[in-house]
Amino acid sequence: MAAEPPFARWAARLEDHLDHLLPPADAAPQRLHAAMRHAVLGGGKRMRALLVHAAGALLGADEKRLDIPAAAVELIHAYSLVHDDLPAMDDDDLRRGKPTVHVAFDEATAILAGDALQTLAFDHLATADAPAQLRVDWLATLARASGADGMCGGQALDIDATGTRQSLDALQRMHALKTGALIRAAVRMGALAGDADDAALARLDTFAAALGLAFQVRDDILDIEASSEQLGKTAGKDVAQAKSTYPALLGMDGAKAKLDELAAIMRDALAPCDERADALRALGELAIHRSH
Amino acid sequence: MAAEPPFARWAARLEDHLDHLLPPADAAPQRLHAAMRHAVLGGGKRMRALLVHAAGALLGADEKRLDIPAAAVELIHAYSLVHDDLPAMDDDDLRRGKPTVHVAFDEATAILAGDALQTLAFDHLATADAPAQLRVDWLATLARASGADGMCGGQALDIDATGTRQSLDALQRMHALKTGALIRAAVRMGALAGDADDAALARLDTFAAALGLAFQVRDDILDIEASSEQLGKTAGKDVAQAKSTYPALLGMDGAKAKLDELAAIMRDALAPCDERADALRALGELAIHRSH
Repeated sequence: MAAEPPFARWAARLEDHLDHLLPPADAAPQRLHAAMRHAVLGGGKRMRALLVHAAGALLGADEKRLDIPAAAVELIHAYSLVHDDLPAMDDDDLRRGKPTVHVAFDEATAILAGDALQTLAFDHLATADAPAQLRVDWLATLARASGADGMCGGQALDIDATGTRQSLDALQRMHALKTGALIRAAVRMGALAGDADDAALARLDTFAAALGLAFQVRDDILDIEASSEQLGKTAGKDVAQAKSTYPALLGMDGAKAKLDELAAIMRDALAPCDERADALRALGELAIHRSH
Repeated sequence: MAAEPPFARWAARLEDHLDHLLPPADAAPQRLHAAMRHAVLGGGKRMRALLVHAAGALLGADEKRLDIPAAAVELIHAYSLVHDDLPAMDDDDLRRGKPTVHVAFDEATAILAGDALQTLAFDHLATADAPAQLRVDWLATLARASGADGMCGGQALDIDATGTRQSLDALQRMHALKTGALIRAAVRMGALAGDADDAALARLDTFAAALGLAFQVRDDILDIEASSEQLGKTAGKDVAQAKSTYPALLGMDGAKAKLDELAAIMRDALAPCDERADALRALGELAIHRSH
């Protein structure tokens, strides 16, 4: 029988790595540094970092090397949350059970902290201890997934669609960019660290795309079925903002059937793999069944 | 007698390069893409891009290769202006003679467009046609100059100091980060494209640091002596916001004497160079004497 995946150990490595990477809270400009640390440390599921490690583990990549893209992808994710929570965007007060950055600090600091976290992600990949070719491959993967062709573009599509009823296709395209692109990038960066060939990269990308979508379908379901306390962020916002969601378009049963379908795609994608894929399999299960 | 430096040609190359690099205005999400193009195209002195080309020209670097960091540094500069102009930051309506992005579009779009422009800068460096080692050297240089240890940190120091009287040392430290770091990065990226050795990099950095400071001293003087129409942005804001400036701390005569001193440092730094440094010399002169 396979051992439990070392998620807790990977998450602890990440936390330690980020703690050293972030600028110290007692050096000027203190407010900026404190806001960056508030946004990044001590919270979150760390799904993207765990995906980097799990994909790397499948290919036998060095754990120390995987710490680098794991931290970078979490920095990008954290910056996007800081900016998404701003009053001009989603206007949210609560995140990971703590006040959002513009509430705990102020709006100008939140804008700047998000900006500096994005830069730090690329700075870290550019300067880390890894071969130059691997660093540019990581950088290209993460940048493409984060910008106008990825996460930022998806967020813009989401804003454009607010208050309108979207088709299922449009909803899926939006989520594929807004959250899917970064999740796929996490898996790809882990695989690149293990020198994956094109066939492995393609198989893992099929898995990651299904996981990203499942994560979002589950998110939509939880927004309806869970409390703000369980989620550590404001629940019921989708309905309040009249957003198109999977439950809204497919019904709750339809949304849950969609999850089953995505679980099958993930299983099939990893079927040729041995027990070294167990960590990825477990993260796929988590995306489907998580309660917060 | 040396030929005039080809600034107009370099600026035209930049504009063309950026036009192709930016996402098309007619593809979704259109509003994001239009805002990105509004922020970047058709305006600005392009000082940073010209510095990349001028430093590269001194070392005989390939012009086509220099287009890459020239575009990247202008994208970073443009993103920083979009975010600095936001209501929560400097709250400015006018930039490069046009409405700022949050005025022409909206705040959410301005935040996202700035984010996506930053990403595009790193995306471009990571994926451009150049050796992997040069790409990571460019990336490390630009990222370090842009983040909490550079531009973002300087902006945070500026915010922290608003309404207080700063010492000359503190003012200089703030500007060295807020505007100086990116100007030095521009010169260094151009020099890296020409395979500069450490001695050349050090000499050019002395020049660039003086130029960056001169640019800011001149900016402070123009804020008092020029009109909004001349500047293409709101004049007189420093006094209105009670900001520490060189004229405020040194008097107008003292500020102009400081410019003379910086001009001498720039001349000395390039004294060992032949006429291939003329473009850099001309940009140094421009920083000292510009009227907008």
